[in-house]
Amino acid sequence: MKQATSPWIKTVSLPPPSLQDNTADAERLITALKTALQTDDPIQIDLDLLRELSDIIRHNNFNVRCILFKDNHRWLVVGVQGADEIRPVAGLAVDLGTTRVALRLLDLAAGRTLAESGFDNPQMAIGPDIMARIHFTESPDGLKTLHNLIATGLNSAIQDLCQSNNIEPQDVYALAVAGNTAMTHLFMGFDPRWTIREPYIPVMNKPGVVKAVELGLRVNSMARVYLFPNIGSYFGGDLIAGILYTEIYRASETTILVDVGTNAEVVVGNDNWLIACAGAAGPALEGGVTKMGMLAGPGVVDKIAINPQTREFSLHTIEDQPPRGICGSGVIDLAAQLYLAGMLDLRGKLVPALCGERLKDVDGLPHLIVIPAEQSATGCDLTVSQADLDSLVRSKAAMYTILETITLTVGMALKDLGTFYVAGTFGSIIDPRSAITIGMLPDLPLESYRPLGNSSLGGATLALTSEASLADIDRIRDRITYLELNVNQDFMNRFSAAKFIPHTDRTLFPSVKSQPG
Amino acid sequence: MKQATSPWIKTVSLPPPSLQDNTADAERLITALKTALQTDDPIQIDLDLLRELSDIIRHNNFNVRCILFKDNHRWLVVGVQGADEIRPVAGLAVDLGTTRVALRLLDLAAGRTLAESGFDNPQMAIGPDIMARIHFTESPDGLKTLHNLIATGLNSAIQDLCQSNNIEPQDVYALAVAGNTAMTHLFMGFDPRWTIREPYIPVMNKPGVVKAVELGLRVNSMARVYLFPNIGSYFGGDLIAGILYTEIYRASETTILVDVGTNAEVVVGNDNWLIACAGAAGPALEGGVTKMGMLAGPGVVDKIAINPQTREFSLHTIEDQPPRGICGSGVIDLAAQLYLAGMLDLRGKLVPALCGERLKDVDGLPHLIVIPAEQSATGCDLTVSQADLDSLVRSKAAMYTILETITLTVGMALKDLGTFYVAGTFGSIIDPRSAITIGMLPDLPLESYRPLGNSSLGGATLALTSEASLADIDRIRDRITYLELNVNQDFMNRFSAAKFIPHTDRTLFPSVKSQPG
Repeated sequence: MKQATSPWIKTVSLPPPSLQDNTADAERLITALKTALQTDDPIQIDLDLLRELSDIIRHNNFNVRCILFKDNHRWLVVGVQGADEIRPVAGLAVDLGTTRVALRLLDLAAGRTLAESGFDNPQMAIGPDIMARIHFTESPDGLKTLHNLIATGLNSAIQDLCQSNNIEPQDVYALAVAGNTAMTHLFMGFDPRWTIREPYIPVMNKPGVVKAVELGLRVNSMARVYLFPNIGSYFGGDLIAGILYTEIYRASETTILVDVGTNAEVVVGNDNWLIACAGAAGPALEGGVTKMGMLAGPGVVDKIAINPQTREFSLHTIEDQPPRGICGSGVIDLAAQLYLAGMLDLRGKLVPALCGERLKDVDGLPHLIVIPAEQSATGCDLTVSQADLDSLVRSKAAMYTILETITLTVGMALKDLGTFYVAGTFGSIIDPRSAITIGMLPDLPLESYRPLGNSSLGGATLALTSEASLADIDRIRDRITYLELNVNQDFMNRFSAAKFIPHTDRTLFPSVKSQPG
Repeated sequence: MKQATSPWIKTVSLPPPSLQDNTADAERLITALKTALQTDDPIQIDLDLLRELSDIIRHNNFNVRCILFKDNHRWLVVGVQGADEIRPVAGLAVDLGTTRVALRLLDLAAGRTLAESGFDNPQMAIGPDIMARIHFTESPDGLKTLHNLIATGLNSAIQDLCQSNNIEPQDVYALAVAGNTAMTHLFMGFDPRWTIREPYIPVMNKPGVVKAVELGLRVNSMARVYLFPNIGSYFGGDLIAGILYTEIYRASETTILVDVGTNAEVVVGNDNWLIACAGAAGPALEGGVTKMGMLAGPGVVDKIAINPQTREFSLHTIEDQPPRGICGSGVIDLAAQLYLAGMLDLRGKLVPALCGERLKDVDGLPHLIVIPAEQSATGCDLTVSQADLDSLVRSKAAMYTILETITLTVGMALKDLGTFYVAGTFGSIIDPRSAITIGMLPDLPLESYRPLGNSSLGGATLALTSEASLADIDRIRDRITYLELNVNQDFMNRFSAAKFIPHTDRTLFPSVKSQPG
């Protein structure tokens, strides 16, 4: 029976009261649940539920199914129904991204996914980047406005997701939300202003469990929301969720997890220790893709190959439609292929002699024509500028330096890493071969690279489907040593060395072929 | 410094955050509080408070005074202010009586009483007795109406009490409420219908701590309310508060506590064990005074003496005003004095030969004229009927039988009891000498009797002023063996024997003089 596998649903048969056993209804239920859960931890019943409890219990002849959730060591009873109730008990995992919010609707009884959806974070209307939003909280009602935007967006998405799965929002009893520290603040209604001012202090590291209504969510009135903890202003719950999802905290082998969003966030560790850091990977990688790139979609160039002899371009577009732009993976492919064809030198500069007619000057700045106007769907040349490429080189150098620094700190070399998890959009889109070629990622065997997809959503799902995983979260958080990236001379030296393609020290990238000529 | 004595107010100096110590504000405060409280118990900060926390902490340069309360083993932070804040921190002890509600406003910092007040329970408008109110909850919105009546009454009383002490209701951060099980249900919004139907099951035995706003109270929005636990439908939190107040649970000597309200509730015990029972003491004692009596007030007869030889009545009225009625203590005095003068026989029947002209017949029923019309302030005879006296005899017999049964159960005799606490109005008004004479209370030395006043309010006060007392409450509750008064043949035999004045077995009342003649 699948229901038995759910940590949150317990069906209990209460001994009916008698003159010899006149324990109150609440304590009678709690005693039965303690036996069913095999726990001595306190069990708390929501006040609103207590107000209906006696009727529910008696209408169902003392056979009830209870919906539970856990807050630290306390069990919370958030629903009591008849033992034969067939209404679904739903949960909702949420990845609360700065630009995009992803939702996964779960059947908590069966522990399985019912559906997923996503929507653009409506706070984008206030500011596309998180800093603009944090500054906006300092205006009157600014925080309230931002909180309402995300709550309204979630409510609308929940409504749609439920409707298309034939369930009601009041069937949703538990949510797990993983977001970066700033997004978690805006969602909780916490003042984020001190997270961006030295020494960068969040309101709270472990928000834990709160009532959904207190966050303005329209789900079951007794539903609870679990918020993933953060380590600081720049290492948030989304990363902790990612660590939970990859299980790197349980592996004997030392592995690495990289998530590239507004920052590059990196965790290295095993079942003994975890070390983490976060750093600006530069604007070129913001949002997990290069600024030059556009989102994947029909007609977008996602793969590029350049014949090193003929310097002919072979492009692949999504759905084989006429090309209308280049997405992130295309840009990284492009840089790698330009380099291998000798059209980009080791400093990341376009080589006029080899670029030939593909080079054009716009406002005094060299631009490389990737797709000439006559082949493009837009009727204009699709180009990449030298400035874009400079920015990409700085970003890849920052990225590599961060990876190098964190492994050096624990006395390892990047080549010692077993598995290299790459989270999020960045992980899904990049071709590791190209990323290695430009020296963005270390020269590990290609099979070491594992794209994770939305690991934050995956972690949030685990928090709702596994009691052990939920219990692991605080342990993960408390075990992480956070490395404050000290931008000192050593770091700057490593950064300078990494600003070459693939690197000043070519022995670090044995698999990258030399340029022709 | 007085403030240091309060268990609920802690002033802490937080180490200001730095890049080396970037713990979030909430956890920084919790760590400091754990040290100040010398505790490892979890500390929870109210969500609304978290939303203001960073500002409060910084406005006060990391020096804050925290207002705390406790829920089981969890500390709750319900207020954070500047360390030099001088606003009062108030608490409110409440005795939630069926007929009357008593409030005591406390300065939580100093642990002292600021003022007291009381008001008639506005639910009296629905029904003077609790059964009528419980039945009323079964009508549409009945429970809501009753809850609103008591909440509105409390809010109005709190407003007045605060105003006359120059504090604001939002300065009230903690309340402790002791009431019988039914009143606690009506106040919590719990459905009380199963408390009056066999096997008499409350919704909850230990309601614990809830937010004041959830009960409709207008005090500080983060204030918490502690509700005293009950043992069953007929042994409520008011009694547990009384046990806390008398400290009988800590004494090596075995003592007894009696509270007479709608029921006679009795606890016998010491620091090793506690046994309790509750039983109907009969309508004559309802409300803690006899039905014949009226509330004490100017002109009310509170003491009566009858010269056994001349059978002349000496009356004392409150404030020496012309007599307009008899209060409870007066009625018990009257019965005792009538008996000693031979005007009432040992079966409690008026003796026509000795009552003489004081006897008159009303609708075929003998009435004793206590105050003739020409001496009364009302212009009418003030009388007591034979039916009133029969009812008093049944009540006193029930009372004595309950006391005898509970002590027999623990293998003791009533004469073995050291101290005999008599709670509430009943304890304040009766003259133990008269109560012994009619055989209502056992024939102990008069100094054994200790009127307690409002022990329920006293216990509620302790819950707010002593952390140890608050922690004792659940222990008291769990230690009590509740004796279900089994109205079997033995009980009925004892009851029959007690229906004589003072008792069939006169050796039990050696101090009671024989009747003349």
